Amino acid sequence: MHCDCLWKNARLLVTRPDETGFVIIDGGVVAAADGRIVYAGPARDNLQTDRVYDVGGRLITPGIIDPHTHLIYGGDRAHEFKLRLEGASYEEIARAGGGIVSTMKATRAASEAELIAQALPRLDALLAEGVSTIEIKSGYGLTLEDELKMLRAARALERLRSVRIKTTFLGAHALPPEYACRADDYITEVCEVMIPAVAVEGLADAVDVFCEGIGFSPAQTERVFQAARAEGLRVKLHAEQLSNLSGSALAARYSALSADHLEYLDEAGIAAMKASGTVATLLPGAFYFVRETKLPPIQALRDARVPMALATDCNPGTSPLTSLLLVMNMAATLFRMTVDECLLGVTLHAARALGLHAETGSLEAGKACDLAIWDVETPEQLVYRIGFNPLFARVFNGVHYE
Amino acid sequence: MHCDCLWKNARLLVTRPDETGFVIIDGGVVAAADGRIVYAGPARDNLQTDRVYDVGGRLITPGIIDPHTHLIYGGDRAHEFKLRLEGASYEEIARAGGGIVSTMKATRAASEAELIAQALPRLDALLAEGVSTIEIKSGYGLTLEDELKMLRAARALERLRSVRIKTTFLGAHALPPEYACRADDYITEVCEVMIPAVAVEGLADAVDVFCEGIGFSPAQTERVFQAARAEGLRVKLHAEQLSNLSGSALAARYSALSADHLEYLDEAGIAAMKASGTVATLLPGAFYFVRETKLPPIQALRDARVPMALATDCNPGTSPLTSLLLVMNMAATLFRMTVDECLLGVTLHAARALGLHAETGSLEAGKACDLAIWDVETPEQLVYRIGFNPLFARVFNGVHYE
Ligand SMILES: [Zn+2]
Ligand SMILES: [Zn+2]
Repeated sequence: MHCDCLWKNARLLVTRPDETGFVIIDGGVVAAADGRIVYAGPARDNLQTDRVYDVGGRLITPGIIDPHTHLIYGGDRAHEFKLRLEGASYEEIARAGGGIVSTMKATRAASEAELIAQALPRLDALLAEGVSTIEIKSGYGLTLEDELKMLRAARALERLRSVRIKTTFLGAHALPPEYACRADDYITEVCEVMIPAVAVEGLADAVDVFCEGIGFSPAQTERVFQAARAEGLRVKLHAEQLSNLSGSALAARYSALSADHLEYLDEAGIAAMKASGTVATLLPGAFYFVRETKLPPIQALRDARVPMALATDCNPGTSPLTSLLLVMNMAATLFRMTVDECLLGVTLHAARALGLHAETGSLEAGKACDLAIWDVETPEQLVYRIGFNPLFARVFNGVHYE
Repeated sequence: MHCDCLWKNARLLVTRPDETGFVIIDGGVVAAADGRIVYAGPARDNLQTDRVYDVGGRLITPGIIDPHTHLIYGGDRAHEFKLRLEGASYEEIARAGGGIVSTMKATRAASEAELIAQALPRLDALLAEGVSTIEIKSGYGLTLEDELKMLRAARALERLRSVRIKTTFLGAHALPPEYACRADDYITEVCEVMIPAVAVEGLADAVDVFCEGIGFSPAQTERVFQAARAEGLRVKLHAEQLSNLSGSALAARYSALSADHLEYLDEAGIAAMKASGTVATLLPGAFYFVRETKLPPIQALRDARVPMALATDCNPGTSPLTSLLLVMNMAATLFRMTVDECLLGVTLHAARALGLHAETGSLEAGKACDLAIWDVETPEQLVYRIGFNPLFARVFNGVHYE
């Protein structure tokens, strides 16, 4: 078999066929041709290649995947964070320009180039830890032009770095002040103006809604889902974060790729997600940052074999976090997910949450050759350690970056 | 005024004289001669120098300080972490070679050179975030020779990297199996053999004890303190982590540099620490990792104006953590410490916990020129962000490392 490039002398993290965990292959090789894996497994003789990397026994995992971020935004909320710790009330913070409205204003005020420049250090922090695919949502513009600007900025990142970007239109993230007390009218704008425009430009891979008492109702969510379906776009949902509105079951009825957060998810929601193949995307960074105490129903999700993905939820208000390694540790420490569940959560199941599981997320022939090569001996060391980055090299579409 | 080196065009984080917080000086300069700060403040004309760094408006803080670590150890406990998450019982973990005894065995089996090699990546992770001073404890050898080996390895790091190391003898960390059911005899060995030998070789700057129901009693702790005092060594204490044994008050009676952990600290302990000038060293990484729910009495410490330091507690069993930036975020998020308290906790108060507050920990003339130069606009951004390292350059004893 001929290939362009070969990584040899590797410890490979290979996903079990039943997707419940991994097997380790020592002395393994990964071979790539035209950016795709043509072979991953034990060393064999019949591989002719132009280029060989000896990885010296290091661990190779699939390139890791962050399937839920709000990476594009203007400004930050560090000052609000400081004021809150000093005991400021919500009124004082609002007067000092805090809250999501401050992010909306800074995002509207920024040009596309400025949004890109502000997002790049965050993206680079993720890439430095072996990320090869990332989802990015709009949702801080809340006007057609500003939402399109955010999605264009997100797409532009793919041209500036060696990374795969999936974009999600989240116009129904918050009610813009122009529509105060007219949420249904804003949803009409989202459905009749924004989604068609986003679809015409091909700027979004999916559509998302923040379904919550402080966000949009299930009825409003369903209107957005119908508009997405009319444009042939898959849906996702911010659901059951602060209360149980049965958003996950609604999302499942629309064959959502994922329902995300899920602290208040109930058994009916789990059953619906299982039936529809909807991924449960868990966001332990937000859980940690807002000091939530209600744990998502991990054991019930595990029992139902609903795939669980993990993501940073990188955003300025509730998760200013750019480390998927830390997300794995938080999922283990705070949610008691196992090491294998954590690793599946940032590989195959994260890919599934983006509809990319045929494309990436495991070391399998036919998939993109996205690898993370680590200076560790065992996969559990990636989850156990905190505030430590053992990445040795990253491979994206068959190209090796050291 | 003549100096060797000048950092100009900086935003300086200058400690208030009353040590309650900071003032920001824009357009500031730091001037150093012979490795020490000769001036830090607003730009002025009369500074002649050989070398100038224009830091482009970046934030300069004191080099940060990690005043409580167990950085030197053999092996790790990642596999035990994995087994626990899979529901293994303590017996199963002990049978699989887990627990502190496994770290003791791996530490005893390692040579001094091996201990150094294993610690260097952890040290480098800290230095990459702007650390210039770090405390390292012994306590996994638990024989005279193995404790001396750990302390020599810790001291050796100072010759291999641009960092200031303070060592602490923690022979009374755990009861070695050779002394099972003979804790008093082990304490006799610690007091009569180990402490004198450590003192003769000048290998420790302080002596520490793990005072806890599962560690050593207050009476045993006091014997160790007396032996330390006889050798002219300052003391510290692991106190009130899992229960209240009034260890902090005992430590205060011996003018301890610090009492550390302190989740179960009471008002009497706080008053004693205040009177003795003992620093409260808080370890939010261990709090997080063991999922402790009892918070240390931050408001009472604040009211009493007991200085609060922060540290990683880097150790393989309860805090496999090598990020002081993350420690600050955890102190803010989990303990509700303010941004200024977090920053004082890894600068001046951390220096005080090591008896080094005349030497480092603030941007003041006469102190070592230890600086961290950051790609952020405001100090609160250092505390607010998670899993992100904005260090631009590090200065240690007046030498600039980029
Ligand atoms: Zn989100
Ligand atoms: Zn400790």
